[in-house]
Amino acid sequence: MTTMNRQLVLRQRPKELIAPGDLELIQTAVPDLKDGQALARVKYLSMDPTMRVWMAVDTYLPAVAIGEVMRAVGFAEILESRTAEFKKGDKVIGLTGLQEYAVIEPNDKLRGFRQVPSIPFLSDTAFLGVLGITGLTAFFGMEIGAPKKGETLVVSAAAGATGSIAGQIGKIHGCRVVGIAGSDEKCKWITEELGFDAAVNYKHADWKERLAAATPQGIDINFENVGGEMMQEVLNRMNLFGRVVLCGLISGYTKGDPSLASFGNVLVKRLRVQGFIVIDFASRFMEAATKLGQWKMFGKLKDRETVMEGLEKAPEAINMLFTGGNIGKTVVKVG
Amino acid sequence: MTTMNRQLVLRQRPKELIAPGDLELIQTAVPDLKDGQALARVKYLSMDPTMRVWMAVDTYLPAVAIGEVMRAVGFAEILESRTAEFKKGDKVIGLTGLQEYAVIEPNDKLRGFRQVPSIPFLSDTAFLGVLGITGLTAFFGMEIGAPKKGETLVVSAAAGATGSIAGQIGKIHGCRVVGIAGSDEKCKWITEELGFDAAVNYKHADWKERLAAATPQGIDINFENVGGEMMQEVLNRMNLFGRVVLCGLISGYTKGDPSLASFGNVLVKRLRVQGFIVIDFASRFMEAATKLGQWKMFGKLKDRETVMEGLEKAPEAINMLFTGGNIGKTVVKVG
Repeated sequence: MTTMNRQLVLRQRPKELIAPGDLELIQTAVPDLKDGQALARVKYLSMDPTMRVWMAVDTYLPAVAIGEVMRAVGFAEILESRTAEFKKGDKVIGLTGLQEYAVIEPNDKLRGFRQVPSIPFLSDTAFLGVLGITGLTAFFGMEIGAPKKGETLVVSAAAGATGSIAGQIGKIHGCRVVGIAGSDEKCKWITEELGFDAAVNYKHADWKERLAAATPQGIDINFENVGGEMMQEVLNRMNLFGRVVLCGLISGYTKGDPSLASFGNVLVKRLRVQGFIVIDFASRFMEAATKLGQWKMFGKLKDRETVMEGLEKAPEAINMLFTGGNIGKTVVKVG
Repeated sequence: MTTMNRQLVLRQRPKELIAPGDLELIQTAVPDLKDGQALARVKYLSMDPTMRVWMAVDTYLPAVAIGEVMRAVGFAEILESRTAEFKKGDKVIGLTGLQEYAVIEPNDKLRGFRQVPSIPFLSDTAFLGVLGITGLTAFFGMEIGAPKKGETLVVSAAAGATGSIAGQIGKIHGCRVVGIAGSDEKCKWITEELGFDAAVNYKHADWKERLAAATPQGIDINFENVGGEMMQEVLNRMNLFGRVVLCGLISGYTKGDPSLASFGNVLVKRLRVQGFIVIDFASRFMEAATKLGQWKMFGKLKDRETVMEGLEKAPEAINMLFTGGNIGKTVVKVG
């Protein structure tokens, strides 16, 4: 008897939120297994903001093709196997897609199926959440954030799956942890149950003042999930040498916010943007000047000057730096 | 006989470019030296874009106070000394300010005077340029950029003092170096004299296409001096795991461009913004999941789920991630 599989396939790319007609629920017959394949019954599907990105554009993964089953991480149980890697009853995680049955192959690198152990105190869904992609994202993101005891961490979308774990990891490392979330209930949950030191509901008109009050020592680490105005305000309160872990920009996923375009590149291309001011390197100036001098002596560095005569020319000379009149180094000759 | 000193003092903060009345040229008498002081004759003054910032706002240094001599790096010669650290004839560099004579003290940390050697093949001005703050900025910035042989480096304001050195350092490290500059003359200088592989004049209407043609392998390192639209286009062409060395944002210094506000924080606070995608850490998932599992077992991590029943709920569940309806991890229960 043929088993029918319900699937959600992508029919058109969403404009803002997902609208009727973007994903269509269809029924297809589960195909017969070939050698090297296994059939899995999907039990749970992980819902992640990145899915909205997969529906729209090529980023770190190609966009889901029109007509394809929508991509999603799922927890599934093997029903039948014609591969040595999986046996009936095994529990697996991987890119099952939005469907009830998935035919999987162990060496499908993109969909990346791996077996998960049965552990008594853990629910199956833990492998999609705290021990799954969500928890891993929080873990490695906080590693990038390099938290130090006593520093202040601000997490946006703090009551979300990733943010709620990231904040708790900050507490484990001895940080003061402040969450930004969108309801008083969420704020209560992260402070009273998860142990965040403070929470700010950004739907209050005075949320910026509340954030300031909650971060009296400024902000050392920003675990950023939202972007846009929220990120700008956090950046305004960052301390010197702070770290911004760019994990998501969900405020821009459902609308094409052009001001987020640059930050979007930083996220999906895993760029490192490093601000710097040369005076921080003062202790190494001699070392560097020696090197520069050698390069110059051996003709590897050439320089050119735009020299203006007289102190009174300084304002004009400064302006020229912005209007493009100079080439090379601009100096004013005074004496 | 009293020596008169001409000085440029800050009278009002500039709105856009420096306008008449922002800096006033005044004459004052050079004061008598006290013990521990030296009098220096300013020979050359370095013109740097950051001066425009010093005139306007507190950043990594406090803004210049109204009525104060405008801050500037100068090259000066000691005329008279009542301190053991400097003797008549010594050449020094430090924050002389925009004036003809400067009274200096060796232990003035902020103004940071240091003696420079007389080296036959080097002009005095080299200590303001290629071997001075400009060259040092290029040197340490390129250290942050971590150039590897064969990578593509794009430098904006490439014919400027810092950009022209940064690009040449890229060539020394074996990079393909492309400069962006504002005239054909500048482009010619950086390619024909400095050895850049290509140059793009951003005043041509098709500069974006020219940049694309000049960077067929994409961009690995961006030594950014300009910001704004130029930076956005470079970010669009960045390769995975690229580095953006944020050295300046001169397109925003003379106008309060709000879209640059966030990047301005990154620059002046020396923030590190790191985009990341968790799949890059796949080889360490087991290690991390073990750690997360331990934390969860010992009650250091709590989680919460929003569970929706039925595959057909998936579109609604995804949308909820953006409209704020969920708390904690959202999963769809399928089977």
